[in-house]
Parts: sequence; C-alpha cells; structure tokens
Amino acid sequence: MTERGAFVAKLRAAATKNNSLVCVGLDPELEKLPAHIRSLPQPILEFNRRIVDATAEYACCFKPQFAHYAALGAEDQLLATIRYIHEKHPGLPVILDSKRGDIGSTAAKYAQESFERYGADSVTVNPYLGFDSVEPYLKWKDRGVIILCRTSNPGARDFQDLESGGKRLYRHVAERVARDWNAGGNCMLVIGATYPQELAEIRAVVGDLPFLVPSVGAQGGDVAAAVRAGRTADGFGMVLNSSRGIIYASSGEDFAEAARIAARTLRDEINLYRFGNPDKAPTEGSAVR
Amino acid sequence: MTERGAFVAKLRAAATKNNSLVCVGLDPELEKLPAHIRSLPQPILEFNRRIVDATAEYACCFKPQFAHYAALGAEDQLLATIRYIHEKHPGLPVILDSKRGDIGSTAAKYAQESFERYGADSVTVNPYLGFDSVEPYLKWKDRGVIILCRTSNPGARDFQDLESGGKRLYRHVAERVARDWNAGGNCMLVIGATYPQELAEIRAVVGDLPFLVPSVGAQGGDVAAAVRAGRTADGFGMVLNSSRGIIYASSGEDFAEAARIAARTLRDEINLYRFGNPDKAPTEGSAVR
Repeated sequence: MTERGAFVAKLRAAATKNNSLVCVGLDPELEKLPAHIRSLPQPILEFNRRIVDATAEYACCFKPQFAHYAALGAEDQLLATIRYIHEKHPGLPVILDSKRGDIGSTAAKYAQESFERYGADSVTVNPYLGFDSVEPYLKWKDRGVIILCRTSNPGARDFQDLESGGKRLYRHVAERVARDWNAGGNCMLVIGATYPQELAEIRAVVGDLPFLVPSVGAQGGDVAAAVRAGRTADGFGMVLNSSRGIIYASSGEDFAEAARIAARTLRDEINLYRFGNPDKAPTEGSAVR
Repeated sequence: MTERGAFVAKLRAAATKNNSLVCVGLDPELEKLPAHIRSLPQPILEFNRRIVDATAEYACCFKPQFAHYAALGAEDQLLATIRYIHEKHPGLPVILDSKRGDIGSTAAKYAQESFERYGADSVTVNPYLGFDSVEPYLKWKDRGVIILCRTSNPGARDFQDLESGGKRLYRHVAERVARDWNAGGNCMLVIGATYPQELAEIRAVVGDLPFLVPSVGAQGGDVAAAVRAGRTADGFGMVLNSSRGIIYASSGEDFAEAARIAARTLRDEINLYRFGNPDKAPTEGSAVR
C-alpha cells in the first residue's frame, strides 16, 4: 500500500508493452458459453482462462463484471480467474467492475473485499455518496479507484445531466475527482463511449486523468469518435472496454481464436486514431511515457 | 412476481403486528462478535440467528449489509441467515443492503442475485445511473426496491446537495421515484436520520412513499426529530434502522438479551413520537392500514 500511482503506472506499462488500449471485459453468461465449455465442472473459470490466454497479447487489462459472478454464486470462479491472470500474465492489471458505493465504514469493507479478498488491482465505484464513501479505497495507494462519471446507458441522462451552476452533475464529479480525490494519482473516470461529446468536454478540464471507456462494440460506441475525444497528447489517457464483442465473437469451438482476432482488430482500430494522425505508425514506446 | 406492492404490504403488516418501525441491521464483524460465538464453525450465522430470534418480536424487518459478508467471503452465511429469517419469522421481510447500481443488462443480473439467489424481499439501489439501471428490479413486482436519496454520511453533501432548477439532486431523485419509478407501488427511499430537515422536505413532496431511515443510534441520528419529520399521518411511512446499537449492545455472553432490550427500547422510543401525540398509546391496528 505504498507506491503512489502504481496502478496507473502498471496500466501504462501494459499499454506500452502490448501497444494496446483494449480492456477485455469478462462478463460470462452460462447460456452463452460454448457447449463444450458449459459442460465442464467450472465452466466460467475454464471459459475465462481461455479468453485471457487468447487475448492477453492484445490487451492492456481485464475487467470482470461482478454481477455476472454474483448472480450465479460463482465468487470462487471470479477469485480463481483473477489469480490466474496475476499468475500467467502478471503485467496485466485487473479491474473489478462492481460499482460499489456505501458510507465510510462499509466502504472500508468493500475495499477489503476488492483488494484483499479478490486481489484486484482496481475497482469501480459510484460517486453518489461523496468523498467519505471513496476515501477508504484511496487509502490503498498502490491500487486504482475508477469513479463513475458519465455512464454509457440511456438513463445516464436522468440525473448525470442535471445542471448546477452552469455545469452538469457528471462534470462536477469529474472536476472534484481531478482536483481532490486524485491526490494519490490512483483515480480514473468511467465515461461511456456512447457519449463522445462528454468525453471531449471532460478531457478538456481534467488534464491527463485516465478514462475507462465502456461500451465500444456491442453497445454501439463509435471507436473513432471516442478515441479522438478522450485521448491525451501522448496517445494514452484512456482504455476502451469491449466485453461481448470479444468474448462472444464466436459461440463455437473456435471461440478463443475468434476472441483473439476480435481483440487484435479492436486494438488496431483504436491505434488508427489514438495518435492523431492515422499515417503515424504506433511504435513501441511512443504510446505512453 | 405478480402481486402489486406486496413488499410494502408485507412490511406494513409486520409493523402492525409487532407495533414497531425498527429495522435491525445485521452488519457482523468478526472482531466484534462475542468470544464464545467467534469460535464456532459458522460464527456469523450463529450470531445472526441469535440476534434475529432475540429481536424479532420488536422489529418489522431485518437488513443484512452485503459488504460485511463479501469482505469475508461469507456469502453462504448471508444466504443461510436470510433463509433462517424466512423459515423462523416468515412475516418479517429482509432488505438486502447492497446499494447496487449498474446498466440495464447487468442490473438484471444483480436483481437475479438479490431476489433469486438470496431470496431477499427487497434490495437497496443507487440512482446515479438512472431509470434503466433500476427497471430490472422493478419488474419483480412482489419485491421492494429501495433507492438511495439522501444518505446519512457527511459526504452526502458533495453531490446530493447540488441544486438544479431550484431543487437539490436528492429532491430530483425523490420526485422522480414518486412520480414514475413507483408505478408498481414497490419503491422506498433511503434518507438518513442525520438529516431531519431533508426528511421533512421530501415527505412533503412524495405523499406516503415509505422511507428506510438508517443511522439512528450509533451513527448519531436523533430518533424524535427523524420520526416527526418522516412519519405519515397514519403513523407509518418509515422504518428506522439500527445496526451497531442493537447487535453490539453487549459483547458478552448476554449479547442476545442485550440486543432484545435495545430493540425494544428503540421501538418504544420511536412509538413515543410516531403518532404525533406522545399521550396517544399506539394500539393494535392503528399504526398502519
């Protein structure tokens, strides 16, 4: 719990090494798993291991979505998945996407769950309860805290767009995180790929604070628009998550190979736009510094 | 999944039967359990069973807080606790306090977790992601959906107090729930006992929508002020949660008896104020209708 900004540094190092801003979302649903996997004793773990191994060289991180495990009582397979990633692909950080949000004493329990029990490198959290609900996570200085800002769903408009003092709620959240909560250099913001204007607006006010951008691919976010709006001058500043578009690229026996190709394709598509000039080839080490 | 408003009806029936608005919060922490319980094979379950049996006649519901189980990998004991309450005290509903909040397809998984896997009567949810993040829970028409509105912690002010169009964020949430989300009669709002002014403000605009009011007792909320501000004309309209003040009333072998007395005392204190006239004795059937 000592190294300042270690999570973001690990993420940047992975992005550099694999020349990739792709986050692979691990959202297993039993009914969507290939039949030959579904019949195994630990189908979710077996599926995840194959997806992870197939996509690791084209990814900068993995993001298991907690609800998909919790609904099935598969906490043991979630834990085993995270351990597998750490053991086999130690440079690739794990984001536990559980969108926690509770008052301080309870938030400390959730931080314990995320970082100690599951050993995740970072966790997603909801800002509605304010600073003392996020502070217990921030104390884990070598881990990342990824705060919901502008989510990717249609309902994001219901409250996140309410304007106060000339700024919408999501912008208040973004500015507060950049100004105060990120003192330890371990914060990121969730901003949906489905809202590229908001990506650009927030990028303009938070310096190089990195974004986790869900909903490219299956949920319809436009890669080019999202990357142009959210990137930083050095070609980093964001990771883009795809779940279904990668892990369910095929439902047959070739699912892992199909996932590998989907991850590589997304990586290459992102790299076309991230350096501002599609003619500039992304070379090793130029992506991040 | 058919009976409209069944959760609120069950809660009211329990409040009437036990003449109580007390919600007993089940937030077990291993280091706080009595030594003779801590040494048992399933200490959390054993502790909860004794607390539940001791307090059931003075309570209208139980509220296990998810983080306390998740941090320890004790999902099995959480599930066993909920089953125990259903079996031994079938009239008393269970609120699973997990403050979930995610986009629609994922929210459906969390609803499955709460209602199917754990068999909870209701669940707490975070409104930041808007309507489509809450809709999957609302479809379970016989269950309750308890939406965070004004939380009890100091950080509640950070964003919940932002004013938009002359109303603060928490009020936008309250009005939206009362107007739209509660069409099935299965919603409640979380409003901290630490903010009685806001309790009164929201009561004035949401009709008789019931509140879950945490943080009486150990967290410092004033019972008289909270009850006067939040009650409805019929003496219902809210349930007040106490966790530590009841379950840790004693750390010795008498912990269950101490919890029983603490629950009864809180019930009686609440009843002093809930009918508007401390001289009016709360009689069977007058509390709720």
